[in-house]
Formats: sequence, C-alpha cells, structure tokens
Amino acid sequence: MAESVRLYVAAPASVSVIQCSPPSWMAQIVLAEKSVAGEVIELDFGRGDHKTPELLTKNPRGTIPILCHGERVIHETLAVLEYLESAFPQPPLMPRDLDGLARGLSRLHESAALKDAGMALFAYLMRTPVAVRDAARLADLVGALRRELDCWERHYTGVEWAVGSSLTLPDVVVFTYLATAHQLGLDLARRWPALQAFSERMSTRASVRSTLSSTWQTRREDLAGFG
Amino acid sequence: MAESVRLYVAAPASVSVIQCSPPSWMAQIVLAEKSVAGEVIELDFGRGDHKTPELLTKNPRGTIPILCHGERVIHETLAVLEYLESAFPQPPLMPRDLDGLARGLSRLHESAALKDAGMALFAYLMRTPVAVRDAARLADLVGALRRELDCWERHYTGVEWAVGSSLTLPDVVVFTYLATAHQLGLDLARRWPALQAFSERMSTRASVRSTLSSTWQTRREDLAGFG
Repeated sequence: MAESVRLYVAAPASVSVIQCSPPSWMAQIVLAEKSVAGEVIELDFGRGDHKTPELLTKNPRGTIPILCHGERVIHETLAVLEYLESAFPQPPLMPRDLDGLARGLSRLHESAALKDAGMALFAYLMRTPVAVRDAARLADLVGALRRELDCWERHYTGVEWAVGSSLTLPDVVVFTYLATAHQLGLDLARRWPALQAFSERMSTRASVRSTLSSTWQTRREDLAGFG
Repeated sequence: MAESVRLYVAAPASVSVIQCSPPSWMAQIVLAEKSVAGEVIELDFGRGDHKTPELLTKNPRGTIPILCHGERVIHETLAVLEYLESAFPQPPLMPRDLDGLARGLSRLHESAALKDAGMALFAYLMRTPVAVRDAARLADLVGALRRELDCWERHYTGVEWAVGSSLTLPDVVVFTYLATAHQLGLDLARRWPALQAFSERMSTRASVRSTLSSTWQTRREDLAGFG
C-alpha cells in the first residue's frame, strides 16, 4: 500500500494582502506535476494555525510547508521539493545528468536571492496598510526585487526553461514569485519580456491552474507603476 | 581521463577578523571527505579577486565558492555540496533511503537559518573595528546566533550526527559555523554541551585538520563572555 502524503500549506485567503504563500504554492505545484494523490491541509496563517503544538511537533521552527509522507516529516521548502523529487521520481523535475544537474542545482539555490527580495517586499505590504506605506522604503524593497528580476531575465532570455528542454524545480520556484508580484500589480512585460513569456507558459499548465489561489480573481495595484 | 576539479574559495587570511569563509571551508571539507583530487584556488577576498571579470563569467553574483568540474560551473554553496554528492557519490554524505533523506534534507536546508544568524554577526565583526562596536547591536546579533545554537543543541542532543550513524552534509555545514564562532571567542561548553562534543568530534577528522584556516593559531576574543 502506498504511504499517505499530507502537505500542510498556508490557506491563501488567510495571508493578508498577498493572498498566497509562494513556498506553499510551489510544493503544491510539484505534487500536481508528479500526479501525487495527497491530502493538502490548508492552515489559517493569520490565526497562527501553523504554530499549534501539533504543528510545532512536526517543525519546531513553525514554518510551512510541511510534508508528511508515511511517518516521515520534511520541512524547509527546498527540502520538501528535493524530497518529492527523490520519493516520486516521475516525471523528473531535476536533470539526472551532471551537466544538467550543475545548472539545475545552481539555479535552484540561486533562487534563495529571489525569495529574499520577494518575501521582504511581500512582508512589508502585508504588514503596512496602504495609507501608511513609506514611499522611500517601498521603492527600496521594490528596487531589490527589480535587481533580482533583471538577473533572472538574463537567465530566461532565449530559453524556455531554466535548464534543458522541460520544467524543473527552479522554474517552479521562480514562477511563484513572478506570479505573486504580478498579482500585486507589477507589470513584467516592458522590462522583463523573457520572464513575462515564461510566466505565461507556466500559467497554462494544469499544475498551476489547479493550484492557483482562488482569491486572486481581482488583481491588486500595490506594485502598479513599478514595472 | 577524469575531469578536472577546481574549487575557487576565499583565502582565509584575506577575510578580515574572521580569517575564514565558512561557505568556502565546507566545500573544501566535502572534497577532502570524498578524497577528490582537485585544485583549490584561493582568492583574495579583501582585494575583491572573487569579482574579477573572469570570476563573474562563472558566477555573475560574485559569490564564492565556485566549483568547476570539467566544463561545468556550479555556484551557490549548497548547490556545490549537492553537486559533489552526485558527482562523487563515495563515501556517501547524504542518506540514500527516504527515511534518512527526509531528515537529512530538512537539516541541510534548515542550516540556512544558522547561516543567516552566523553571517550577520560575522559581517558586523568584520566591518566594525573593536573600538566602535555598539554593545546593544552586538548583543542583538549574538542573541540571534544563540537562539540558533539552542535549536541545533536540541538536534544534536543524544546523537553523534545530524542524521543516522555517520557524517552527512548538514554536519559539515553546521560545524563550520560552530568552529568560526569558537575561533572568535564564543565558549560552547556551558550552554551547548552537545554542540561542543560534536565540534570536538569534527575537529579530529582528517578532512577538517587538512583544511583548517592556517591563520587560526590564536583564538580571538570578540565573542568571549557570550557563551
């Protein structure tokens, strides 16, 4: 009998302003890409349901996503993604050859810089009501994200995917930050056309459509004018 | 013919105050553990030799370590470690079974929190002459590292290694930060006895002894009294 798969994620609607947790979303996309039938348990982030005693037993740091596979518990986002790649190797989402792996691992870990810039900006938007946002502070945070997007624009220029000829884990990671910035009003098309095209390609995938935050019907304008 | 291995690292003596770059050191330890005969190229960090046009071609972000294996280039520290594990699988430094992998990957990626706390503190010490250090700022930075060490103390209590019964990648990562903090004067023994014992175990390994910063003969006192 197959071991049960449970993925604890942030309920999108419980994440104020952003209405999505990119780290949770990327784990859901990978489950969908691999057609893993698992239970996705949405936790109310605003209420702190990811820090209940039960959850802290699984991950004392209180971060999500958390993956439970049979008796095994995996926390830390990239650990979840890499574990899923080993436990459910088909279809492969990381190259198996050393040439591809060299590039794939570099890109996957380089995505930490995009995460840092993205999450710093998103956290500021979450915590700061529109009326009291500081223009200079916001511009600084957006500036850091813009520099990251410039870097990833070069990576995606002339290629469809981060590595090789098909989707790999770094694509999934990068996409969730692009999509979140887009939802918050950032226009990618002018300055980052390769990222815009990549983002559109990703948006057509069943794995993305089936996991998209249901509360993203109306696009916000927090980052409008920053593209 | 085996492909050439070149590892670009920070020359320890070129890193002011700290006299070591933990990310560079961990890659060197892994090469030594796997008995990979490679050329280690020490770059003068203070002079900015890691940001020459040649190096920026390999890694536009200008960070080290960078691994070159034949024509392949791998940057980002954990990417280098994971690539080495795939390219040189013996002796294994990550579990191959899913139980071990679940724990090993969680610990490996959780080490990013230790890195963040450690590097923030080390960067402050590097950039701030002793005479003008701010006691409150220093206490804050040390406080963040102490909280991390509390967390890792729990992980290492009652076990010799992070995962299973032998050395794995998370052990290498964690050790380099412990050893650097120790060199800077932090006393582990009283508050973190499991980490102290782990650190002593690591220090006896040939891979550590052969790669130890040659400039660490005299222990500093920057963090004395904070143990």
